[in-house]
Amino acid sequence: MEHLRLLDILREHRGAYISGEEISRRLSISRTAVWKQINKLREEGYEFEAVSRKGYRLVFAPDKLEEGDVLEGLQTKSFGRHLNLMEVTSSTQEAARLLAEEGAPEGTLVIAEEQTGGRGRQGKRWYSPARKGIWMSLLLRPQRPLSFAPQLTLLTAVAVCRAIRKVTGVDAGIKWPNDLLVQGKKICGILIESVGEDERIKYCIAGIGIDVNVELEELPTELHTVATSLKIESGQTQSRATLISAVMNELEQLYNLYEEEGFAPIRHLWEALSVTLGKRVTVKTPRGETEGTAEALDETGALVLLDDTGNIITIFSGDVQLA
Amino acid sequence: MEHLRLLDILREHRGAYISGEEISRRLSISRTAVWKQINKLREEGYEFEAVSRKGYRLVFAPDKLEEGDVLEGLQTKSFGRHLNLMEVTSSTQEAARLLAEEGAPEGTLVIAEEQTGGRGRQGKRWYSPARKGIWMSLLLRPQRPLSFAPQLTLLTAVAVCRAIRKVTGVDAGIKWPNDLLVQGKKICGILIESVGEDERIKYCIAGIGIDVNVELEELPTELHTVATSLKIESGQTQSRATLISAVMNELEQLYNLYEEEGFAPIRHLWEALSVTLGKRVTVKTPRGETEGTAEALDETGALVLLDDTGNIITIFSGDVQLA
Repeated sequence: MEHLRLLDILREHRGAYISGEEISRRLSISRTAVWKQINKLREEGYEFEAVSRKGYRLVFAPDKLEEGDVLEGLQTKSFGRHLNLMEVTSSTQEAARLLAEEGAPEGTLVIAEEQTGGRGRQGKRWYSPARKGIWMSLLLRPQRPLSFAPQLTLLTAVAVCRAIRKVTGVDAGIKWPNDLLVQGKKICGILIESVGEDERIKYCIAGIGIDVNVELEELPTELHTVATSLKIESGQTQSRATLISAVMNELEQLYNLYEEEGFAPIRHLWEALSVTLGKRVTVKTPRGETEGTAEALDETGALVLLDDTGNIITIFSGDVQLA
Repeated sequence: MEHLRLLDILREHRGAYISGEEISRRLSISRTAVWKQINKLREEGYEFEAVSRKGYRLVFAPDKLEEGDVLEGLQTKSFGRHLNLMEVTSSTQEAARLLAEEGAPEGTLVIAEEQTGGRGRQGKRWYSPARKGIWMSLLLRPQRPLSFAPQLTLLTAVAVCRAIRKVTGVDAGIKWPNDLLVQGKKICGILIESVGEDERIKYCIAGIGIDVNVELEELPTELHTVATSLKIESGQTQSRATLISAVMNELEQLYNLYEEEGFAPIRHLWEALSVTLGKRVTVKTPRGETEGTAEALDETGALVLLDDTGNIITIFSGDVQLA
């Protein structure tokens, strides 16, 4: 933890030099130890100027997530309170699942600065560059029947969409069931993995990936027409910690509402944020393709289509493409 | 595999002696190798008499599951065809789940002669003594929405119940959703673990534990009033291999029916085998206790109760106690 205390001292002096001797005295460590900690911070992306007789000066701090910054913004009882912040992991979903199997409590949150094996729906690779986005997984233990699990998918989309709008002003909308789009481009992917026993939910892991501060030139070219980031859309760097806290706050509030009043209020919020309803869509399901106009969510969370012959078709599962 | 060929030879001669020399000649192995194989079989519980100048005689063969015996009885396309037969494992559910995550195909079956950490609903311990029962887990990859997963729970109960009746004549019935009872005592536990991604099923593991040849005196005393075995109920030792094949055959047939025609035909079969319908029941749910008369399954597989004030209550999840 010494390098974090060192960082605090350097931040106080940002722009001004502070001598190795003074740092050594304030942290009660040797000059050699100071030098080692400086190197450790350099490895994490911090940049310093070191001038003899003057000392060290912090010239660049990477946008590093600090646990304190996330906790400070929480207005929750449990969501985000058990926080596991990691520098790098293969997938926050896997990390959260291990914690769930070990009995971790509801609200446990795993965040990684970088994912080396981030995954989206159906095992598709999810691009998760270091410090540029929010890659996190929240453990839920809803006392609901397994058949209601898809409703949590819709609830999570509503919560994240509201948090993004509140914090950044970016006009995100929801494509059924839980993609968040801005002007047709994906800005956030959500993946709810549910584990059930017979007719009960054992636990759910809500995986949330938000492209926050990715620059247009950093985005792989093949993604330019289909993906965007909050920085690209809002024109400014966004605080990831603030957004994480806001997502937790919205999620816990909606989750409590769902526990108390069921799906009806969530359904209305989802419909209000939807970019799918009223549109002509093609839905790919395991049983073939269906075309029609997206009319509504039904009371279970399924998508209701009206096809060209006037038939009502209920879609429980599938990939929606907006025409 | 030499000890299995040796076993075949000894079985042919059951009751009669066969000389070490003849075995050595028929298997084309040395006399010392014959002696080693005999010792290997002894470790597995086989008993022999060895008399000089006469040779060996098989006097006791433990009821050991042989892969060939299970495969011989299969009339399936895929169920049970990828067979993993283990002497001992902590839990066949865990073993099957690992295989599922590695991409094993639908129909993969894990059977253990003994489970050291067998589990039932809600993590309850499941008593699984060596060679006395069927402890197995089947991997399913249904192309159905996650909200339909509880229907597979009911389907599995129907399949196992039909197989038990056909093979043993024991009059088993189903308590909602998937316990199998004989005269009110549990004879089989089923646990379907489902893993879903958003609104889709990724895979399901159908765990099936059948008390086959447990003797009354082997059953822990505290279970005497609540559990029984097929041997206790039928008065005779039952072939586990035959029963395993029969369960696979019934399951694949019903699963195909479900894929083609949906839940309606499964629902009728379930209702016909139910010991819950028409009875007064108490249901414990996460939201409290409900009492009433079990009237029907609804079209999603939920249990429909009629309470004392004439209200219809739909139970999606809970523990049913028959009054």
